[in-house]
Amino acid sequence: MITFENDYSCGAHPRVLARLLETNLEPQPGYGFDRFTLEAREKIRRACGSPGAEVYFLTGGTQTNAVVLASILRPWEGVIAAQTGHIHVHEAGAPEALGAKILALPEHEGKIDPEELRSLVAALLADENLEHMVYPGAVYISHPTEWGTLYTRQELETIAEICRANALRLYLDGARLAYGLMARGTDVDLPLIARLCDAFYIGGTKCGALCGEAVVFPRNAPAHFINFIKKHGALMAKGRVCGVQFDALFTDGLYYEIGRRGVETAQRLKTILARHGVPCYMDTPTNQQFAILERPRYEALREKLPMGFWSNPDPAHTVVRFATAWYTTDEYLEELDRLLQ
Amino acid sequence: MITFENDYSCGAHPRVLARLLETNLEPQPGYGFDRFTLEAREKIRRACGSPGAEVYFLTGGTQTNAVVLASILRPWEGVIAAQTGHIHVHEAGAPEALGAKILALPEHEGKIDPEELRSLVAALLADENLEHMVYPGAVYISHPTEWGTLYTRQELETIAEICRANALRLYLDGARLAYGLMARGTDVDLPLIARLCDAFYIGGTKCGALCGEAVVFPRNAPAHFINFIKKHGALMAKGRVCGVQFDALFTDGLYYEIGRRGVETAQRLKTILARHGVPCYMDTPTNQQFAILERPRYEALREKLPMGFWSNPDPAHTVVRFATAWYTTDEYLEELDRLLQ
Amino acid sequence: MITFENDYSCGAHPRVLARLLETNLEPQPGYGFDRFTLEAREKIRRACGSPGAEVYFLTGGTQTNAVVLASILRPWEGVIAAQTGHIHVHEAGAPEALGAKILALPEHEGKIDPEELRSLVAALLADENLEHMVYPGAVYISHPTEWGTLYTRQELETIAEICRANALRLYLDGARLAYGLMARGTDVDLPLIARLCDAFYIGGTKCGALCGEAVVFPRNAPAHFINFIKKHGALMAKGRVCGVQFDALFTDGLYYEIGRRGVETAQRLKTILARHGVPCYMDTPTNQQFAILERPRYEALREKLPMGFWSNPDPAHTVVRFATAWYTTDEYLEELDRLLQ
Amino acid sequence: MITFENDYSCGAHPRVLARLLETNLEPQPGYGFDRFTLEAREKIRRACGSPGAEVYFLTGGTQTNAVVLASILRPWEGVIAAQTGHIHVHEAGAPEALGAKILALPEHEGKIDPEELRSLVAALLADENLEHMVYPGAVYISHPTEWGTLYTRQELETIAEICRANALRLYLDGARLAYGLMARGTDVDLPLIARLCDAFYIGGTKCGALCGEAVVFPRNAPAHFINFIKKHGALMAKGRVCGVQFDALFTDGLYYEIGRRGVETAQRLKTILARHGVPCYMDTPTNQQFAILERPRYEALREKLPMGFWSNPDPAHTVVRFATAWYTTDEYLEELDRLLQ
Repeated sequence: MITFENDYSCGAHPRVLARLLETNLEPQPGYGFDRFTLEAREKIRRACGSPGAEVYFLTGGTQTNAVVLASILRPWEGVIAAQTGHIHVHEAGAPEALGAKILALPEHEGKIDPEELRSLVAALLADENLEHMVYPGAVYISHPTEWGTLYTRQELETIAEICRANALRLYLDGARLAYGLMARGTDVDLPLIARLCDAFYIGGTKCGALCGEAVVFPRNAPAHFINFIKKHGALMAKGRVCGVQFDALFTDGLYYEIGRRGVETAQRLKTILARHGVPCYMDTPTNQQFAILERPRYEALREKLPMGFWSNPDPAHTVVRFATAWYTTDEYLEELDRLLQ
Repeated sequence: MITFENDYSCGAHPRVLARLLETNLEPQPGYGFDRFTLEAREKIRRACGSPGAEVYFLTGGTQTNAVVLASILRPWEGVIAAQTGHIHVHEAGAPEALGAKILALPEHEGKIDPEELRSLVAALLADENLEHMVYPGAVYISHPTEWGTLYTRQELETIAEICRANALRLYLDGARLAYGLMARGTDVDLPLIARLCDAFYIGGTKCGALCGEAVVFPRNAPAHFINFIKKHGALMAKGRVCGVQFDALFTDGLYYEIGRRGVETAQRLKTILARHGVPCYMDTPTNQQFAILERPRYEALREKLPMGFWSNPDPAHTVVRFATAWYTTDEYLEELDRLLQ
Repeated sequence: MITFENDYSCGAHPRVLARLLETNLEPQPGYGFDRFTLEAREKIRRACGSPGAEVYFLTGGTQTNAVVLASILRPWEGVIAAQTGHIHVHEAGAPEALGAKILALPEHEGKIDPEELRSLVAALLADENLEHMVYPGAVYISHPTEWGTLYTRQELETIAEICRANALRLYLDGARLAYGLMARGTDVDLPLIARLCDAFYIGGTKCGALCGEAVVFPRNAPAHFINFIKKHGALMAKGRVCGVQFDALFTDGLYYEIGRRGVETAQRLKTILARHGVPCYMDTPTNQQFAILERPRYEALREKLPMGFWSNPDPAHTVVRFATAWYTTDEYLEELDRLLQ
Repeated sequence: MITFENDYSCGAHPRVLARLLETNLEPQPGYGFDRFTLEAREKIRRACGSPGAEVYFLTGGTQTNAVVLASILRPWEGVIAAQTGHIHVHEAGAPEALGAKILALPEHEGKIDPEELRSLVAALLADENLEHMVYPGAVYISHPTEWGTLYTRQELETIAEICRANALRLYLDGARLAYGLMARGTDVDLPLIARLCDAFYIGGTKCGALCGEAVVFPRNAPAHFINFIKKHGALMAKGRVCGVQFDALFTDGLYYEIGRRGVETAQRLKTILARHGVPCYMDTPTNQQFAILERPRYEALREKLPMGFWSNPDPAHTVVRFATAWYTTDEYLEELDRLLQ
């Protein structure tokens, strides 16, 4: 069986699993005070060029977004996000369940436009009724976005400048950050993200781990954050489980290797789609590709090939997502090629 | 290094890890729709003698307690628990963060007394101000309790009867259920629990898994529970991670074997403590033993031996917890023996 | 001093206050079990042609919206509302604070378009990822809207039919319902609203009361709603305060008289604005009129005349709201006329 | 009809109502920016000897407790209260609904014991597992308590000193503060309370107002508290309604006069009970008296005389509350005398 449904269809990258095996019998304290977590934390700090950063490990993206946003927003604040932001569409209302209202901006291939952000913030801050409204408190961006697109360094700098100028926090959802970092032509790297963001997470689940996301607060982590994580049901007793995995991901460049592999495979996949006359919904440089299928072809293909349903833009077509990952072998691509014939 | 600090100091039982390795490269759908999860679910249903049960996997105990309680309580209800209940003391307010008030009962070696429960419920239901109060909606018990003690079949039957008679749901926290099921002399087994409880969980994290708790609703699971889990940040993308592990735990009796091992080791540990004149705080039949140490001895010992701090009953003494698990070898016990000399 | 800032600038309509005075010394039970509340409830049922309706009194609009929505939404559901809906813009995130995510629709002069509603619901229900999203659970409309506009009978019928067909609840925010009911040419009345909606409220604060909103559940009120109101801090000890006022408002047609007065005054006000060349932002049939002022005129006028700030559509203009109410006398209009010269 | 059921059975004290009438037609801004509110605020500051205090008006006690506690607790904190505290027993879980866990202390005639408080705080702060628990963040006391009893100046000083020493906030629920201030022999006054507490409220609903509680932050009010009040559905559009009433209550000593009247009447009531051989549950110096009635007498009496049900201490007896207020005339007492014969 092969799948392009998502980038979390298999277990963990073999080197991650090997490290779990190696360390399995070494007793360590719980709740993230084990030596593996300490090492992973240190390696992430180094990768971010951010020696003073605080790093915490949570188990999944939706959890991480909700908990971190709740921790950085003050009671009178909400978070600005693109209309298509994962937190706004695909998290079952988790941010709102922790009280965070989302202030939606139009999306442009999944991204927010810095100037639209600037205008929204200016309009809100000039609104004489603001005390009866939700203040803008943070900006949520995903990188790659839900459409697999990327911000440029210049865009991030501008967004960060708008945030700083208006005392907003900038939060980056890096569920698929490995693919973003390794996309061809990107000028965004971890140190830049750490310099510009107030909080972000380096995704593990979709980038080779069994589970786990590394939350980074480059400066000013929330007080008593471990208690906060626990209060929201997100603190692992065996914190080592994430620690060991991120230790492996940030050893010998594995995280980047996983990203590079996903990106390269996705570009080859795009070629295959093109060869078979399947148009892409947009051109994306990372590991997700969105194809437009005529409905009957979608219905037929899905029987044989798990893909991610994305939307029905009109009654005759369905947009589907093809995702690649560390486990997407040549065999997967060949089978796709065969099935599209 | 050895430790008795808790029962989650190492990774996973080798057979659990082996199964993760074996299944690692087989692509499967996410969110618990993989075949491993389906198999684990089926094995748990069989173990519970409850073919119609719905089974879900979450990642940790505090998360599970908060999410399940929030799902079974109606807006006007709270949950009755022992003063010492884990949800009341050691979950950082997670149940309250989802709106569940805890109505505390006195504890008796960690257990609630069925007759005190009966009286409390009767008093509440007879209270003419009840509409201004929190209705009793569920009863929380842990088995083993936080003190390692166990309910008897008779006690559980009585508690369940009181619940049924008053339309309360009965919820059992089985974080350490393996040890409870295998304690000498217990007459409580999984089918009994499934017959009496409206919801319970079979603990994985403290019984050999990397992470994971299996929530069982023998009858009447909440509607849209997957959405509810996601909304509270507790849905794993790689649901298989828990599925595979519980599949392993419920294959060839591994869960029971882990329980038996923990219990036997704890009984040997108790003998060692006795031999060195260390009194136990109470006599418990499972894998946790609570010892009373004079403060100076505690201070000296903790340098060399991780134990779990429990309480300071008076200025001269500290109660500590010694926990055993599948990884507690003879070497651990010998080292303890040596350190106590 | 005169004001057009809003419709809650004075105390209560004299007949409402007179009734508070008359009944002041008659002891009655608390929490809405007094005879005044019972009578008000009965009068409202009659006015709605809905003898089986349950009626509750809360103190303000934001409170009412948040509490009622939280009571009618199930955990996996959110509420659809216009982009400009009061709950979405001007309630400081109160609905989200009770966990209700808002699914925004475009607005058309403050209203949702039934066909856009139908499409949104159809798209959501057809979305294969819905279990990871927020289900549509209710539709929020305000009548009059935040722009003072009104739905037609036909529009309400269509919206209600869409709700019924998709098991959504229909909720109507009637903060200014008196003005809506008495607008010229409207074909919407209380019995229609009671027939079509699952819940709605008849606004008191903005229609002549000191405070108070009457929530009506024509069918199927939530269980233990008094407890729910209390849990969210909205239960008055002296429930009579709202009961007496609504008793007065629904005696001898006072509620309608207040509405008629507000509407008529607003139409005269519109004529005055026109005479002075002040354009209206849109033509509205109720008690709120929105005028476009050049910024300098706005800055000058606001010193002498309290108006409601609405928005800055461009750097040169400000939209302001002129609201009329039962206390808007001829003297107010004459003064406005004078100030505009 | 007469009643002793509670102290909120009638409307408002005539002088409060007169002031509402007098000010009714004067237009003023909403949301507490009216001149009456400003004046009330200023009078309260003077009464408290606390010129820098911030004062806000909410509509009821449960609402006030929940909103204020949520505003002064940080995410990792809960509030310490007596087992019998109103927030713990009779608020339908409102504090928990805003996330505030209550850490219960034994009660002594409704009061907490300062030394027990000291011990609890010391034990919590010394607990090595505190990061997994709820930190003590505030102390809740009611004065008068739910049993009508009062703290002494010395007790309050000690409690405040414990709070200060441990960085806890001290919050006083003054729902019936008028009666507490005017009890014979008390040495507690408003300036003392303002000096010792971080937040408290001066109750209106139970002390002569239609509704309304004045929240006082003598120092360090929470940021954006108006937004916070609104977010929790507690901001009145016609803020003047509370402002005018508190302006009246703090004019010419009305608040104290109401308190004195309630207390004196209650002492006469106590004499009547004694004369008829009805024992009091405890001796209380304020406006609530708790009597022990044999069940049959209770059943018979309640038909003719509304009293407050309190508890069933044993199958043969019921404890009822007799409350007096500004409207409790001689006629009430004479009727009680007659009914007890």
